[in-house]
Amino acid sequence: MLIYDAHSPAPRCLRMFLLEKRLEIPAVRVDVMTGENREPGYLAVNPTGQTPTLRLDDGSTLSEAVAIAEYLEELHPTPALVGHTAEERAQTRQWWRRVELNVTEFIHNAYHYAEGLPRFESRIPVVPEAAAGLKRVAQDRLRWLDGMFGDGPYLCGDRFTAADIWLYVWLDFGNGVGQAFDRGLPRIGPWFNRMESRPSAEGSRALLA
Amino acid sequence: MLIYDAHSPAPRCLRMFLLEKRLEIPAVRVDVMTGENREPGYLAVNPTGQTPTLRLDDGSTLSEAVAIAEYLEELHPTPALVGHTAEERAQTRQWWRRVELNVTEFIHNAYHYAEGLPRFESRIPVVPEAAAGLKRVAQDRLRWLDGMFGDGPYLCGDRFTAADIWLYVWLDFGNGVGQAFDRGLPRIGPWFNRMESRPSAEGSRALLA
Repeated sequence: MLIYDAHSPAPRCLRMFLLEKRLEIPAVRVDVMTGENREPGYLAVNPTGQTPTLRLDDGSTLSEAVAIAEYLEELHPTPALVGHTAEERAQTRQWWRRVELNVTEFIHNAYHYAEGLPRFESRIPVVPEAAAGLKRVAQDRLRWLDGMFGDGPYLCGDRFTAADIWLYVWLDFGNGVGQAFDRGLPRIGPWFNRMESRPSAEGSRALLA
Repeated sequence: MLIYDAHSPAPRCLRMFLLEKRLEIPAVRVDVMTGENREPGYLAVNPTGQTPTLRLDDGSTLSEAVAIAEYLEELHPTPALVGHTAEERAQTRQWWRRVELNVTEFIHNAYHYAEGLPRFESRIPVVPEAAAGLKRVAQDRLRWLDGMFGDGPYLCGDRFTAADIWLYVWLDFGNGVGQAFDRGLPRIGPWFNRMESRPSAEGSRALLA
């Protein structure tokens, strides 16, 4: 297998997932800053031009970081970051989606329409007039998520899961692109500090070898 | 098990999924039009106020239609609408996410900020100035999806999957709320007609018994 890695939040989610799973997969780097991911070579790998992509041993390719993570968990169930049982996996996916559909995709799209506009306006349809509002929604829904966060250290209680990884990586990304979150949130503030102290948080900043 | 069903696209995705799986699960109806889903009774079931929710036999609840569908597929693998193998499931999840993150969530959010504004502005943060742009992105990305659609009858080639259900239900919803799509799209136009002719398309319009 081979991973197409890049300096971008979605590939970083996958890198942190791999570090937590203790999986090593060879990688090549795609320079998304210069638009290498929109050139024919990479588009033959993933016609969407998005990163990351996983090339399987049969030569086929799989895109979308969540789909890749789920696939690697099926091949390597332990340590479980989705879940050991159907019920655990269901709970993880529930929180993973709450994170993505309410918070991180708003951060993502608002970035495309604001700080990322010069890079993205020639690549994808952009909506600059939406940026401020989408940023506001992301922070509002993060407070909403904070209110639903239980007493456990993680989104799924005692279980550290992929949902934690995704939220952490996108909040950390937001910190650097005009979307800093409120560190005073009673649950997510301390949770973020716990996430930050994991070796995989620092380790995932660097591209795969 | 018990499903909390409602007149809304996400519960309809689940209804169509159940019909295609030939699964019958008892259901109760939540009146989202009058805001019953934002009242204490339902918030005790799902603190997000969103529908659908599945109550499990142990009394715990599971929300997010995709998480519920994945869970039911694990309990009842055949007919497979996610996949029989890890590779099939990965391919389905890849397309499911392309559908949701590029098209259907834009339809969803634009609806909240435009035609759905009177109902949603008191419930969730809204961004009316984003509505027109998000609608434009949804249709742009649908053309982009059309360009990646292969030669098979479905998103995953010969396999009919949950990704087809989700895209169909949301495009059908868009038709009724000022987000009609271009029926002339070379792949998705004929695909939509094929989807429309499935008994589950009509059957899923009605709430569960």
